[in-house]
Amino acid sequence: MTGSELSPHTHDVTVIGCGLMGAGLARQFAKSGFRVVAWNRTHERAEALAGDGVTPVRAVVDAVRAAPLVVSCTSTYDTTRSALDPVDQWHGTTLVNLANGTPDEADAFERWARARGARTLEGGIFCYPQDLGSAEATIYYSGPAMLWTEHERTLTVLAGSSRHVSEQTRTANVMFVGISAFFIPAMSAYVEAATYLLDQGVSPDTLREITVPPLRTITYTTEETTEAITTGRYDSDQATVALYAETSAICLDAVRAAGHRARLLAAAVENLDRAEAAGLGGLGFYAQAKTARDPGTTDTH
Amino acid sequence: MTGSELSPHTHDVTVIGCGLMGAGLARQFAKSGFRVVAWNRTHERAEALAGDGVTPVRAVVDAVRAAPLVVSCTSTYDTTRSALDPVDQWHGTTLVNLANGTPDEADAFERWARARGARTLEGGIFCYPQDLGSAEATIYYSGPAMLWTEHERTLTVLAGSSRHVSEQTRTANVMFVGISAFFIPAMSAYVEAATYLLDQGVSPDTLREITVPPLRTITYTTEETTEAITTGRYDSDQATVALYAETSAICLDAVRAAGHRARLLAAAVENLDRAEAAGLGGLGFYAQAKTARDPGTTDTH
Repeated sequence: MTGSELSPHTHDVTVIGCGLMGAGLARQFAKSGFRVVAWNRTHERAEALAGDGVTPVRAVVDAVRAAPLVVSCTSTYDTTRSALDPVDQWHGTTLVNLANGTPDEADAFERWARARGARTLEGGIFCYPQDLGSAEATIYYSGPAMLWTEHERTLTVLAGSSRHVSEQTRTANVMFVGISAFFIPAMSAYVEAATYLLDQGVSPDTLREITVPPLRTITYTTEETTEAITTGRYDSDQATVALYAETSAICLDAVRAAGHRARLLAAAVENLDRAEAAGLGGLGFYAQAKTARDPGTTDTH
Repeated sequence: MTGSELSPHTHDVTVIGCGLMGAGLARQFAKSGFRVVAWNRTHERAEALAGDGVTPVRAVVDAVRAAPLVVSCTSTYDTTRSALDPVDQWHGTTLVNLANGTPDEADAFERWARARGARTLEGGIFCYPQDLGSAEATIYYSGPAMLWTEHERTLTVLAGSSRHVSEQTRTANVMFVGISAFFIPAMSAYVEAATYLLDQGVSPDTLREITVPPLRTITYTTEETTEAITTGRYDSDQATVALYAETSAICLDAVRAAGHRARLLAAAVENLDRAEAAGLGGLGFYAQAKTARDPGTTDTH
């Protein structure tokens, strides 16, 4: 909330991009008592936020000039750059980019912004728009710690769990990408599993009930996975890659016999078969970390 | 623990198959005060359990004759049938099959056993051998409720959460298959995600920490999935299939650019693309239930 020496800042924060998430960000800032400016390429979307205590501004140059902190949340990095292109005077403004993109894109964006005089933080949002501001919402930030310290009071109203995790610009994106690589397939597999189970006559109540134990197990296997990869110890006296390969192939046959695609289970079977072919059949499940690299081979199942 | 009218049962329960899980079952019964017989094709494996209060028996006919309850846990249904083939007198013995197999195999096995005078229950084990007997262990049984009632006291020592879920023989296998279709891909995705994140320099402690929010989210999305499929309401004002497709494609590019296969994430992207192609792009994530069926199309990504 410190004003720049150069600009007579009339507001505390500017939000660029008023899609579902951007609009949610603007509302959450306003609800928390900050003076908020919002800009969107299609101005009506920014205008729609006026009732929520947000000031819609039509020219992006004016929007950026209005506050020392600009939070951007557009669909892609290209969209962000194109939207911000008319701005030629950043006056040392801090630009926080909450768009989803790759770690390489984050680095490139940081260079682009620095060349224009803006200082940047990257953020990875781990929640739906409706959860912004709640204890459940998580946003990880990376970039200069100094910038985080300067704007922490403003940014932390967005998510109950808001943290600066690294000085490296790309880290928030690495985390977003990596967690998505777990989260999205897990949800996809659940949709497939639930569809199969309900089709087979399992009641919704029973389905809810039988989902509890595997969720508990997944929680401790994530801890075991980290431990195994970190120490390089992949042996198991409980269940081997070979046993999982055999079991999951049986399950895949059964789900397919019932007329379901089971695309995620098929991918898991591929991974297990690949690990077994690499001689890891006698080790535990997490030994598949050894074959998780090398995208060169395209395999189908 | 009721004796048959025909046999002078010397023991309470017989365990067929002494692999990691079968041995665990025998030990758990013995530890709980039951008189246990164990049989294995390679006799040494049964013999190894003698020190744990289990009586190893060399002839499968004698093993089955020794108790009114026979619990079988071999690698496949074929192995079970082949192992039990010499037994021509079942005296109304209850045969509980804890091997992994498809629902159709369970039905066929029930017919095979019935033709020989045995009554059967099927069970699906949701735990590792080391967890048998604990509160965390779950086993679902299906088949005649009367048999469950008769042997409940014995069987429940195997798992803190032991339940009879259906009169239909195949149901325990349906549940095992369906839950595996969630559980195994989710674990596989985590191995891939964790390998990427650790390779990218995220510390093990940070990885453990950032895994907590998505696990919490997965827990409520499983509830939402069941609700959506049951009601057929797939709309979302938070995040659409199209948005997930875009985001997950970005993440897949990033993980592959780092030299990782991300096979599970690729499968999730396939599902999202397929749902979008089917005109579901404007609906929520769970709308993929609509395209989860039809294994006829083979697609790769």
